[in-house]
Amino acid sequence: MDIVSGRTKVICIFGSPIAQAMSPSLHNASFQQLGVDCVCIAADVRPEGLKDAVQGARVMGFSGLIVTMPDKTGILQYLDELSPAAELMGAVNTVVRDGDRLIGHNTDGAGFMRAVALAGVDVIGKKMTLIGAGGAGSAIYTQAALDGVKEIAVFNIRDGFFDATARRLAEVADRTGMHLKLYDLADKTELAKQISDSALIADATKVGMPPLDNESNVAKQWLVAGQAVADTVYVPRVTKLLREAQEVGATPISGLGMLLWQAAIAEQLWFGLEMPVPYIQDRFFGDH
Amino acid sequence: MDIVSGRTKVICIFGSPIAQAMSPSLHNASFQQLGVDCVCIAADVRPEGLKDAVQGARVMGFSGLIVTMPDKTGILQYLDELSPAAELMGAVNTVVRDGDRLIGHNTDGAGFMRAVALAGVDVIGKKMTLIGAGGAGSAIYTQAALDGVKEIAVFNIRDGFFDATARRLAEVADRTGMHLKLYDLADKTELAKQISDSALIADATKVGMPPLDNESNVAKQWLVAGQAVADTVYVPRVTKLLREAQEVGATPISGLGMLLWQAAIAEQLWFGLEMPVPYIQDRFFGDH
Repeated sequence: MDIVSGRTKVICIFGSPIAQAMSPSLHNASFQQLGVDCVCIAADVRPEGLKDAVQGARVMGFSGLIVTMPDKTGILQYLDELSPAAELMGAVNTVVRDGDRLIGHNTDGAGFMRAVALAGVDVIGKKMTLIGAGGAGSAIYTQAALDGVKEIAVFNIRDGFFDATARRLAEVADRTGMHLKLYDLADKTELAKQISDSALIADATKVGMPPLDNESNVAKQWLVAGQAVADTVYVPRVTKLLREAQEVGATPISGLGMLLWQAAIAEQLWFGLEMPVPYIQDRFFGDH
Repeated sequence: MDIVSGRTKVICIFGSPIAQAMSPSLHNASFQQLGVDCVCIAADVRPEGLKDAVQGARVMGFSGLIVTMPDKTGILQYLDELSPAAELMGAVNTVVRDGDRLIGHNTDGAGFMRAVALAGVDVIGKKMTLIGAGGAGSAIYTQAALDGVKEIAVFNIRDGFFDATARRLAEVADRTGMHLKLYDLADKTELAKQISDSALIADATKVGMPPLDNESNVAKQWLVAGQAVADTVYVPRVTKLLREAQEVGATPISGLGMLLWQAAIAEQLWFGLEMPVPYIQDRFFGDH
């Protein structure tokens, strides 16, 4: 494909703001590389416009959607079906068209789990500690539980969503048979204790990203060699948390993997394609 | 621009069928050549889906629309404003976004008139004979009258729309002060007579295009040197009508000019751009 034509399939990302979203560039580079006649466009859509945008996507015959903030939960009501993960997370980041039906998926958690597995880390049947239960965090603990991570200690600041998060964790525990428990992030003694016997420690907050790039939620002395430490932040590629993990002999896992693999899984869902992840990583993140 | 990103503007064409539409390829080649960060996508939309498609285009923030068959008249009711030509034609082929408003234009007739003028033919204040009063034909006689072609003899087969067409011609005559009259295309004596003193003869039917490529609505002996003869058909580039016009010393005007210039005028309306018409013609039609 050298040019978008009347035959070119369309994937659209909904979110706001959207101009700086990486997804269109990543997917378009992948489609070009794979020779797939599809283009990914961006639409700045806020929750109040979502109903019309989804209906528009239906009649325009878009092949799929990507959904980002602040639309990931609002879109649920306009879809025909949800994957188990999307339903349990209450959030959709990928919509697949199947005939006249629009099916919501969530590949954020699956992208995280794929990145962890590709780092050679096995957490199935083991314990993880997760910091942050917002959008990325809830995708991670839900998918981790679905995949069989036996014990998940989740830490969050005691904000207005704390009790709702506790109920959500209980629901995921109930549905998956795994053990999930919520703790207050202010309790550093508890955090250190939970981390000490975790195979995987993950940070799904914005700590580590500018202007918080000199901070970490995890004290270096809590980490030990042999653990795996993942960050959802990918700018910078190596956060303070990951640098200190490396220094103690733990396995650092960059947020870039989650970003790339949630996109790769979306392409698999839309078209059965294998996104050329190393090429995309090199093309867009080769300078880090 | 080397890739469609989150910042890329979107133009969408509505019509059905749409896969073979040339407009996306033409505009995308033009945008690439001009270095404009915009992509033209295609959506197979039938009249029953138009309302939702237009509303979708609004909330997705598309910069403009192209409208083709069978949606050119149905879309009128969903727009906020019409250009004088679009309103008089009762048909829209180009929609321009102006803030929150969608304004319908019709560049088909203007594209035709531009192609005629660029062929060095002056028909303002003169007489033309037009065969075919369908979509293309009505765009042509309306724009011609708006531009000041003094007398327009329109021929059509006596179909179910004949009386409605006669009323439409009377309305255009009333609004423009030009003289427009409808004749039965079966009356070859009248056709020969009207052609004889016309500066421009135009065929806006599908005659001349396969499988009718060995046919012409105009007998060669009716034409004389010095006249201009235009066809809206552009495949083949030189129809039987145009070949015979050339043979008698008349000026042939291919339908390709109308196709290219209606697109160029649309780009002017959307973005104030000058489409590189010779480059586009060479890239897509250089083999003819």
